[in-house]
Amino acid sequence: MKKFSLPNGFLSAGLFCGIKQSKKKDLGIIYSEVPCSVAGVFTTNSVKAHCVIDNQSVIKSGNSIKAVIVNSGNANACTGEAGLDSLREIKKSLAELFSIDINSILTASTGIIGIPLPKEPVINSLTALHNQLSNNYKDFAEAILTTDLDIKFSEKQIGNKSKIIGVTKGSGMINPQMATTLTFIVTDLKIDSKELQNSLDIANAKSFNQITVDGDTSTNDMILVLANGASGEKVGKEISHEDFHAALTEINVDLAKQVVIDGEGATKIFEIQIKGSSTEEEARIMAKGVANSLLVKTAIFGNDPNWGRFLAAAGQYGQVDMEKARLKIFDTVLLDAGKVCEYDKPALSAQMKESKEIKVELIVGEKIQNLGLAWGCDLSYEYVRINAEYTT
Amino acid sequence: MKKFSLPNGFLSAGLFCGIKQSKKKDLGIIYSEVPCSVAGVFTTNSVKAHCVIDNQSVIKSGNSIKAVIVNSGNANACTGEAGLDSLREIKKSLAELFSIDINSILTASTGIIGIPLPKEPVINSLTALHNQLSNNYKDFAEAILTTDLDIKFSEKQIGNKSKIIGVTKGSGMINPQMATTLTFIVTDLKIDSKELQNSLDIANAKSFNQITVDGDTSTNDMILVLANGASGEKVGKEISHEDFHAALTEINVDLAKQVVIDGEGATKIFEIQIKGSSTEEEARIMAKGVANSLLVKTAIFGNDPNWGRFLAAAGQYGQVDMEKARLKIFDTVLLDAGKVCEYDKPALSAQMKESKEIKVELIVGEKIQNLGLAWGCDLSYEYVRINAEYTT
Repeated sequence: MKKFSLPNGFLSAGLFCGIKQSKKKDLGIIYSEVPCSVAGVFTTNSVKAHCVIDNQSVIKSGNSIKAVIVNSGNANACTGEAGLDSLREIKKSLAELFSIDINSILTASTGIIGIPLPKEPVINSLTALHNQLSNNYKDFAEAILTTDLDIKFSEKQIGNKSKIIGVTKGSGMINPQMATTLTFIVTDLKIDSKELQNSLDIANAKSFNQITVDGDTSTNDMILVLANGASGEKVGKEISHEDFHAALTEINVDLAKQVVIDGEGATKIFEIQIKGSSTEEEARIMAKGVANSLLVKTAIFGNDPNWGRFLAAAGQYGQVDMEKARLKIFDTVLLDAGKVCEYDKPALSAQMKESKEIKVELIVGEKIQNLGLAWGCDLSYEYVRINAEYTT
Repeated sequence: MKKFSLPNGFLSAGLFCGIKQSKKKDLGIIYSEVPCSVAGVFTTNSVKAHCVIDNQSVIKSGNSIKAVIVNSGNANACTGEAGLDSLREIKKSLAELFSIDINSILTASTGIIGIPLPKEPVINSLTALHNQLSNNYKDFAEAILTTDLDIKFSEKQIGNKSKIIGVTKGSGMINPQMATTLTFIVTDLKIDSKELQNSLDIANAKSFNQITVDGDTSTNDMILVLANGASGEKVGKEISHEDFHAALTEINVDLAKQVVIDGEGATKIFEIQIKGSSTEEEARIMAKGVANSLLVKTAIFGNDPNWGRFLAAAGQYGQVDMEKARLKIFDTVLLDAGKVCEYDKPALSAQMKESKEIKVELIVGEKIQNLGLAWGCDLSYEYVRINAEYTT
């Protein structure tokens, strides 16, 4: 599989249109030659950017999708009528230039909050964007970044002729850059929107909803999945439902972990496995809770195998049966059946110091088939520096 | 009112018994000459220290209370049978020495997690503790501290002859010190346990449940209120129910804010007022959510009037009606009816820099009689340093 090449029937482009002061790429498009089925998940924040509200309405209407236009450097959130006008005018110009239905266009924005998105630089660059369309998605992956240190993508071959490609961005929320997670996944498989949405909802619950950099939910978060069927392979026929769902979940987890690795100020990431809750959902909530704990995040930064913090953090979010409690960092057991174990603390701390990904497993009850996974990054001085710097 | 003097009928003492390596006071007692009605609120963490579980059972049994014994330096949490044995033996010795019913004794512990509380130093110091009993509570207030920089207390005269005294501790959770909030409030008013509990539940919802240093809930948190009736004044007779409840709430808020001021690494605190939610509870949840946001906490540390962060944080926890949204820092309006206002940013930042307590008001909807208050402290480099330091 050739790297950075889109699935059949998809084209993309990315360029600098004039939003970012850094003059880095800030406008990108994904275009499909054939109409796509679509699925999306969006921020749960009650303060929603215009692009989130507009996309939800487009997807709800049942239209098939031809294009997604994305800008970085401006979130177009909390911008009232002026921001909404920009969104509408950009969609209108794009529809005319590409000769597509305005209701087949989705939009996404990320960057500074509270300043209406200037429509002129975007509209003036649409022709250039159209001319640059190609099967390579690297420029697009660059164009959606804000404070990210690198592009983030995940590719997976499926069936004989199909693939799934995902790109994402995000490394925390810096205001005024208000960097947030935007994820775009495209496949040339044929799958209807309803099944696509179901599969995405489950995959998202196990991936993006299980990562945390700082626990803050943005106004612009979204994941969009487009399927154009251009490979001729169909989910439910050449590709089983299970195989597709497994592949979509894998892509989501891979992308989600890349966001954590690039977390603001992060020096390393950690994976929390909670096993034994009464339900899988409770295990996931507990794992996410532990990953969000400042005490856990600072312990990881300090390479401190501080089992009490993990246990106390888990207990805030669900039931811990102390008779069954067992905690492991890498392969070292620190607590077993609720009893403190002897272990070589300096050696374990040294192992943590050398590792870029710390693995923590906590058994909290009997039903160990119920597994919850979450990923977090450590909390460093650099995080405080980045986010405390005065914005002017 | 003489400072540090307990209400009628109460005595206390505090000393170093041998738990803390620092040799600071680590054992304290509150004793009442007459039996007390009692109310308590406890950590909601499913991982609970022995003292929490034991106190809940004593209070549930309906026994009146004569003494509360408290140690600092060891949380006696996650310590299994050995820790439970220590608790029982300490209570047994105390009951014998003071000639009181073992079921009239409450206990509290705070400090390192995972190491059984050594019973000998405590039991060996009970006679000294008994000999030191006095009407002054300063030694007791010192004996309950862990990483706190100073004692925390609140006093209120009520009626002609009665008063309410509260002491608290806590400045974050440092493991192995696992410092947590413990609060003890005593009054010589007469009030039955049921009314006392109701009043405490409401006061707690508006005070300790609305503060945050790092968002982590400990295994040992508790507030205990004892009322011995020794002043001869009765709630519902000489003192109205409303007056008592207002006084108890005021004491709780005062103590809770002292914990935030002493938050680990804190350079200043901030008060979040949310107005206009559909219910008062939603307003409180939103206010607490904003106070907990790392982006808000780092903005406060950086003296950055970063209104987008406040708004986005609030929107995660409840409904923000953008048409009505209005945000004020001190007296400067930054957003009004959803529109960004002109303001002198450097001047406001300078005002924030000079202030020890930042006031933020956010209107999120129509029902502005619904007010939610919460208090947080900023997130500084020092917080990261304190919590990332290796424990050995």
